[in-house]
Amino acid sequence: MKAVRVHEYHVDPSIDDIPEPKIEGPLDVVVKIGGAGVCRTDLHILEGQWADLQNPDLPYVIGHENAGWVHEVGEGVTNVAVGDTVILHPQPSCGLCMACRAGQDMQCMNAFFPGLSNNDGGMAEYLRTTARACVKLNPDTNPADVAALADAGITAYHAVRKAVPLLYPGTTAVVIGAGGLGHIAVQALAALTATKIIVVDKNPDALKLASQIGADETVVADGNQVGEVQELTGGGATVVFDFVAEQGVELEAWQMTGPAGYQFVLGYGGQFQAPTLDFVAGEKNVIGNIVGTYNDLTELMVLAQAGKVTLHTVQYSLDSALDALHDLDAGKVRGRAILVP
Amino acid sequence: MKAVRVHEYHVDPSIDDIPEPKIEGPLDVVVKIGGAGVCRTDLHILEGQWADLQNPDLPYVIGHENAGWVHEVGEGVTNVAVGDTVILHPQPSCGLCMACRAGQDMQCMNAFFPGLSNNDGGMAEYLRTTARACVKLNPDTNPADVAALADAGITAYHAVRKAVPLLYPGTTAVVIGAGGLGHIAVQALAALTATKIIVVDKNPDALKLASQIGADETVVADGNQVGEVQELTGGGATVVFDFVAEQGVELEAWQMTGPAGYQFVLGYGGQFQAPTLDFVAGEKNVIGNIVGTYNDLTELMVLAQAGKVTLHTVQYSLDSALDALHDLDAGKVRGRAILVP
Amino acid sequence: MKAVRVHEYHVDPSIDDIPEPKIEGPLDVVVKIGGAGVCRTDLHILEGQWADLQNPDLPYVIGHENAGWVHEVGEGVTNVAVGDTVILHPQPSCGLCMACRAGQDMQCMNAFFPGLSNNDGGMAEYLRTTARACVKLNPDTNPADVAALADAGITAYHAVRKAVPLLYPGTTAVVIGAGGLGHIAVQALAALTATKIIVVDKNPDALKLASQIGADETVVADGNQVGEVQELTGGGATVVFDFVAEQGVELEAWQMTGPAGYQFVLGYGGQFQAPTLDFVAGEKNVIGNIVGTYNDLTELMVLAQAGKVTLHTVQYSLDSALDALHDLDAGKVRGRAILVP
Amino acid sequence: MKAVRVHEYHVDPSIDDIPEPKIEGPLDVVVKIGGAGVCRTDLHILEGQWADLQNPDLPYVIGHENAGWVHEVGEGVTNVAVGDTVILHPQPSCGLCMACRAGQDMQCMNAFFPGLSNNDGGMAEYLRTTARACVKLNPDTNPADVAALADAGITAYHAVRKAVPLLYPGTTAVVIGAGGLGHIAVQALAALTATKIIVVDKNPDALKLASQIGADETVVADGNQVGEVQELTGGGATVVFDFVAEQGVELEAWQMTGPAGYQFVLGYGGQFQAPTLDFVAGEKNVIGNIVGTYNDLTELMVLAQAGKVTLHTVQYSLDSALDALHDLDAGKVRGRAILVP
Repeated sequence: MKAVRVHEYHVDPSIDDIPEPKIEGPLDVVVKIGGAGVCRTDLHILEGQWADLQNPDLPYVIGHENAGWVHEVGEGVTNVAVGDTVILHPQPSCGLCMACRAGQDMQCMNAFFPGLSNNDGGMAEYLRTTARACVKLNPDTNPADVAALADAGITAYHAVRKAVPLLYPGTTAVVIGAGGLGHIAVQALAALTATKIIVVDKNPDALKLASQIGADETVVADGNQVGEVQELTGGGATVVFDFVAEQGVELEAWQMTGPAGYQFVLGYGGQFQAPTLDFVAGEKNVIGNIVGTYNDLTELMVLAQAGKVTLHTVQYSLDSALDALHDLDAGKVRGRAILVP
Repeated sequence: MKAVRVHEYHVDPSIDDIPEPKIEGPLDVVVKIGGAGVCRTDLHILEGQWADLQNPDLPYVIGHENAGWVHEVGEGVTNVAVGDTVILHPQPSCGLCMACRAGQDMQCMNAFFPGLSNNDGGMAEYLRTTARACVKLNPDTNPADVAALADAGITAYHAVRKAVPLLYPGTTAVVIGAGGLGHIAVQALAALTATKIIVVDKNPDALKLASQIGADETVVADGNQVGEVQELTGGGATVVFDFVAEQGVELEAWQMTGPAGYQFVLGYGGQFQAPTLDFVAGEKNVIGNIVGTYNDLTELMVLAQAGKVTLHTVQYSLDSALDALHDLDAGKVRGRAILVP
Repeated sequence: MKAVRVHEYHVDPSIDDIPEPKIEGPLDVVVKIGGAGVCRTDLHILEGQWADLQNPDLPYVIGHENAGWVHEVGEGVTNVAVGDTVILHPQPSCGLCMACRAGQDMQCMNAFFPGLSNNDGGMAEYLRTTARACVKLNPDTNPADVAALADAGITAYHAVRKAVPLLYPGTTAVVIGAGGLGHIAVQALAALTATKIIVVDKNPDALKLASQIGADETVVADGNQVGEVQELTGGGATVVFDFVAEQGVELEAWQMTGPAGYQFVLGYGGQFQAPTLDFVAGEKNVIGNIVGTYNDLTELMVLAQAGKVTLHTVQYSLDSALDALHDLDAGKVRGRAILVP
Repeated sequence: MKAVRVHEYHVDPSIDDIPEPKIEGPLDVVVKIGGAGVCRTDLHILEGQWADLQNPDLPYVIGHENAGWVHEVGEGVTNVAVGDTVILHPQPSCGLCMACRAGQDMQCMNAFFPGLSNNDGGMAEYLRTTARACVKLNPDTNPADVAALADAGITAYHAVRKAVPLLYPGTTAVVIGAGGLGHIAVQALAALTATKIIVVDKNPDALKLASQIGADETVVADGNQVGEVQELTGGGATVVFDFVAEQGVELEAWQMTGPAGYQFVLGYGGQFQAPTLDFVAGEKNVIGNIVGTYNDLTELMVLAQAGKVTLHTVQYSLDSALDALHDLDAGKVRGRAILVP
């Protein structure tokens, strides 16, 4: 089969012809890929940023936002059958450790992450995952339409879902960064809460879109954004979702966070800092956010199928994977690039 | 009456003879002081650290940990009567703003803080406060025995109370700093949870006491404390209560905090910092903690009256207030210094 | 002033000329009434149903859903001033007991309920209440437009607000009774959650309206409603809001409640019963719901001012109060009858 | 192997010689039984009470409170290995449905219950269960000492665990029925909360034991128990745990439940009933409680290993199973009867 493989860091991957994956354990599932999202993390992998953390044997196949159809199942698989349309949670989990048993999939002691850890990902014709990663979809769903919800989507959704109890009417939520994830966060906030949604971005076009999908107020990040948010929120927001979290934005986010408020960190790359007195005098909090759970993905699919969360996507053929990666790197992709077979 | 007044920063306060406070509004309460705690914050006031933040007109009376007997009440006061034994929440709140109405007294829009803000405190024979600050006690309670619960006590208790849902059996809690507040936190943790309690302090005597009041494990802060805590917790604690939060301890606390764990900040003076990636990859959190609420104080009095939380105190006469302050500054006070009339 | 007073049970009230209420305590507020809702409870009062429970001295003024303008304030009132437009929480609370301090206004130990308990209500030109009952509104709000949110509104909202954490995407909520309260519940559910909303009522017109304001499915209560709901919910709903709770509906509601689900009781008059085995084998729950809190009212006003909750009202002059009561009794009022001065 | 099998209802089971269970699926685990608890539910099975609900093919082996050592594992089992000491959650769950993924094992769509549903139980030398039911223990644990925690234990613990957020200092908890389950509830309440624990039972000896293990107050159920509890709680408890829930106790429990309080149903056999007005005027609640989860069992084992929850047991050999059942039926068992090989 064809697969996009990384052979060496700092070099383009190549499209190789490799054997199809096979069932190896009783809970394995092989999926025929119908759509694979192209994520900024893929660029970071190529730049070697994950080499030390994940240390995969090269060459390996990238792609961690996948949807398709079940092709083959192990003998212990009971939740999906050959032919089912599925979207895949990016991190297959064991279902046996205490974290899994408490619904905290991402804290699983025995998980792996195809396309990131030392396991082949989904920029290929077929992918091997496990039963616990498969969310069964309506048979008529087009996998390419939803694939990007598998990672970008649930990361944004997971954070919003955690914040719901904080965001009752009269509160304010700030979304910094109206790109792929922020865009889903705005829609999820509008679907799940009646908070006042304020979106901050450098790009006026992104803000225009934000207004159409649920933002109550938008703020151009032109240098005065902290003051504007403080004014719009009466001294700081209840929750600030920071999808940038680098280049000082993580510090501005803290200034935008009101007394007894919460800064949710979702982007990365920066260095957060604040006097411990800020935490004591203001009773302010910083909340970490990892990729969402399997149940988050299931819930997000409910919103997607109800039309409450929609994604703008641009399709590329698997053969054009390098174009997709180059376009993403060059800032030419509007919405999410999706590889289709 | 006699009162300990600050006339100038960086200079000892003096014991002055001033008029007794009078009822000024319908919800005012004048309390005859039976015990006033001497707190490190009083030293900080004298050093001028709060001058800019609170900007009180000098001279003024310090003392924000007070208990005594109701001496006079305004016409609108219905919850206490002259002669009642009371402990006082340090920050009288309005009862009318949304924060007060949600039980978040410390977020009150209209509060003041006698002995810290521009209002006379309790190192005196009488103090003026309001109805909403008064917790009625059993008549036979000695105010001097409980006064220190009014500020130090509820600060520790408030943080523990917030953490209870996180600290089910099998989890681990670390208390850094087994002084006045940490000491109450250990007792509150033992009373309210079945978590494994690990106490970290430089002082072996403080650790010995911690073991007697509920610590399951103790760690001397001799340079290896981070590694020891990581080993005792299997890779980081569920919750770390940092009562120091300065001189780098706030950074060690982060290293002691496990995946999906919580660092509770209670001390101050330091500068917290961490890569935003830490928040994302580990889903770790930093939680701010201010002084507790009125209801926290009520609950803590229940624990105190059941003997589940006890305080070691050293009494000084009001005339010897300077001795108490000097002893505290010199590290000579074991437990809490209390001024009595 | 003119006031609608009950002189005797089972007899129409009369419109009397009585003295205006005066400020009696420092926290009292006298409000010039701009709108007073006419509620089914007013009919029940006239029928003597509340005589034993509340035991008011007759004659007294009814009317417990009030909004207007502040006319006079006691010396301790700080949150509103003469001329402010206000909506009134129906039960002034003390702000001093532990329930008030925890945000549970309706559990206040010292509350009263003008127009129901032994205190004059708002079907009059003026009403005496207290500072803690006043929610300040935008000056240009017409009190008659919002008065009914003061009791009917917050009762529905309070229950929905409690249920929010249960009603994530993929869950189902059933609203039984699409009248005044149910109608607000549907709008609040649509504003605060993305659950699937199923409305059950005998009246097809009420269901038509429900569909317009947020219901995803409607079920005519024609005898097959339990089976239909079980089918629409796949075996029972996550939460059933029962605004009828009499004449056997309270038993049907239990059958509509799914495993690990919640029956929220809001109506009254019936007798709930179920085998204790149902609670154990199904882990099902029955949740009581009283009138909402002051903060619920504040939040609901946010939704109302954003147009997310709207009320259909019919205005009657205060002089025509008997017409309003008779029309309500005869089932001729569409929406909520409001008395205006 | 020897096994206690039901051949016919209303007749003693017999001790048969049957083939050992074999691994049938990749996630199966065969356990050599070290201890099997004898439960009142076993008597109910023999009386045919579960015949319709579970409809097992007869003959079958009873016994649903089991602990022992892993004897054989399927090829997909990764969490336990042959020789491990284990206690078994009574209901093996699938790990794939949304309930399992949310940590609600007992709501699993695909679960079975050996010894109750149509699957052989643990009153035998060997039992077949699955990987997800196995909790690994310290190797030196004696299975017979802990077996009864597997069902009775986690049922009591699960309810207490759910109630922890409600039971802060100053609240009151009533435990009705100080038998096997109530006895564990008292210990769990004392370990996890600082609430005031009031125990109600007909048997003064049971109350004496309750006082030794954590009860603050005891009340003999001699006809005045409702009034006594109302007096001890100041008008009703915060939470009432009803381990009887038949013969009218379920109605007394409601009277013992205070305003805004919670009646937790754990026993069964009775018929709960109350006016819907009670739920509205008092905002009172009835909470259903099923057997605990796998994680509940894990947490309870932490308490047991710390000596915070202890069980009184009486051992019988597997050959004497009928004696154990007869003794239980005759009320002659103090604590819990355990069959050992």
